Amino acid sequence: MEVKLASSYGFCFGVKRAIEIAQKHKNSATMGPLIHNQKEIGRLKDDYNVGLYENLDDVQVDDTVIIRTHGIPKNDLKELKQKDAKVINATCPFVTTPQQIVKNMSSEGYSILIFGDENHPEVKGVQSYCDDDVHVILEPDELKNITFKYDKIATVAQTTRKKEKYLEIVNHLILRNKEVRVFNTICDATFENQDAARDLSKEVDIMIVIGGKNSSNTKQLLTICEENTTSYLIEDEKELNYTWFENKNICGITAGASTPDWIIQNVVNEIERI
Amino acid sequence: MEVKLASSYGFCFGVKRAIEIAQKHKNSATMGPLIHNQKEIGRLKDDYNVGLYENLDDVQVDDTVIIRTHGIPKNDLKELKQKDAKVINATCPFVTTPQQIVKNMSSEGYSILIFGDENHPEVKGVQSYCDDDVHVILEPDELKNITFKYDKIATVAQTTRKKEKYLEIVNHLILRNKEVRVFNTICDATFENQDAARDLSKEVDIMIVIGGKNSSNTKQLLTICEENTTSYLIEDEKELNYTWFENKNICGITAGASTPDWIIQNVVNEIERI
Repeated sequence: MEVKLASSYGFCFGVKRAIEIAQKHKNSATMGPLIHNQKEIGRLKDDYNVGLYENLDDVQVDDTVIIRTHGIPKNDLKELKQKDAKVINATCPFVTTPQQIVKNMSSEGYSILIFGDENHPEVKGVQSYCDDDVHVILEPDELKNITFKYDKIATVAQTTRKKEKYLEIVNHLILRNKEVRVFNTICDATFENQDAARDLSKEVDIMIVIGGKNSSNTKQLLTICEENTTSYLIEDEKELNYTWFENKNICGITAGASTPDWIIQNVVNEIERI
Repeated sequence: MEVKLASSYGFCFGVKRAIEIAQKHKNSATMGPLIHNQKEIGRLKDDYNVGLYENLDDVQVDDTVIIRTHGIPKNDLKELKQKDAKVINATCPFVTTPQQIVKNMSSEGYSILIFGDENHPEVKGVQSYCDDDVHVILEPDELKNITFKYDKIATVAQTTRKKEKYLEIVNHLILRNKEVRVFNTICDATFENQDAARDLSKEVDIMIVIGGKNSSNTKQLLTICEENTTSYLIEDEKELNYTWFENKNICGITAGASTPDWIIQNVVNEIERI
């Protein structure tokens, strides 16, 4: 089987940075899974003894606690610092930005609108930086159920969301409010991987998307590839099913922003053997 | 001929207010034409001796100077005050708002984008409140020729512009800049007249649009009516041409935001006689 890799795939800047930070702090532990990839978390545990706290109560004085790439809620961070733990912040800088924007805009008297999934850890963290009026939506339709406390609105987006949908929401806001302060907090890395996956999926017989099944950006890659060809999402090479490749000649490969190169390489090796 | 008036037409809030101010200040003069309607300016001259300055040098100490609804450039206002003239500000509050926004945003380090016609007095006035980086455009296409000095952009719109086009421009900005602070300075009054004109023009045989031929909002009313029926723009009843009404049964009427009721009434009376 011939294998083609997308021109852009895998680790984004924030994930690369978080893993480097974790590797520099042996015998530490992360508050929440560092990234959305169980295998890489397993590797950090095996090779660097980087563990995982289930909750804040597990943290002891003088522990070294690494904050996950998606960030954590403001009060959790405050509590960690009060415990006299050594806090190492691996929050992606592109996530710290919307956190700080929400904090500043809220204190300047803006109502806050976050475009994103309210159950996603990144969004929960960003939302926690508003002490006043904050709303989270995924669809423009949801705006009709919202009454803003103020007539000045500040908006941020979850870093991995689609720009087109963000603009739709923002346009609704502009027509209905005196001032809308729009912060484009969407990260281009996600879209570079998506554009490359879209292009590649048009010229191959099958696409394999490698990544965590709970990773938002990995699932988006699968949706994009499915528009053009038969596509499968796997976490590693053990999930490959040989029947998928019958009568296929070229296999395209892409990977989510939390998928490490060593997993991708294992998958490529396995498919090339078919 | 049967005549139907649009459900909303004529004077907007800012024009009504400016005329009331002028009528309260007999023997004054306006800096620039008070509104875009020569006939109404003539009436103010005849009935209240409200004159018109051609330029700043005409203003003498102790003169009473009325600022037009569209506003004047910041330095002109400063010069007037230095002349010890009595300055009465009839600038529409909906125009003062973008002037102040541009002033504040510019001093806070934003590049300014104005959506409007750079030759329109309102836009010239608003633009003058920026001491730093300011650009004026009418089409999203023009953005490609602009290099903003800062990565934070604040935008305002000429009060009489179309919202749809403003959103197009704003969307381009959001995709290309970290922060876009969007102020919706478009005045609804213009659109109430436009919506009513659109509805009426669909159910009549001919539309007469009454207003100044240099009035931006009057010309927009004509364009909207022409989409649905034969339409003519006139400044008063003397411009009516009887051949227009041959084989027509119902005539719709609308009027620009600077058109006084007495001119509209004269036109209605004349058409009803046909």
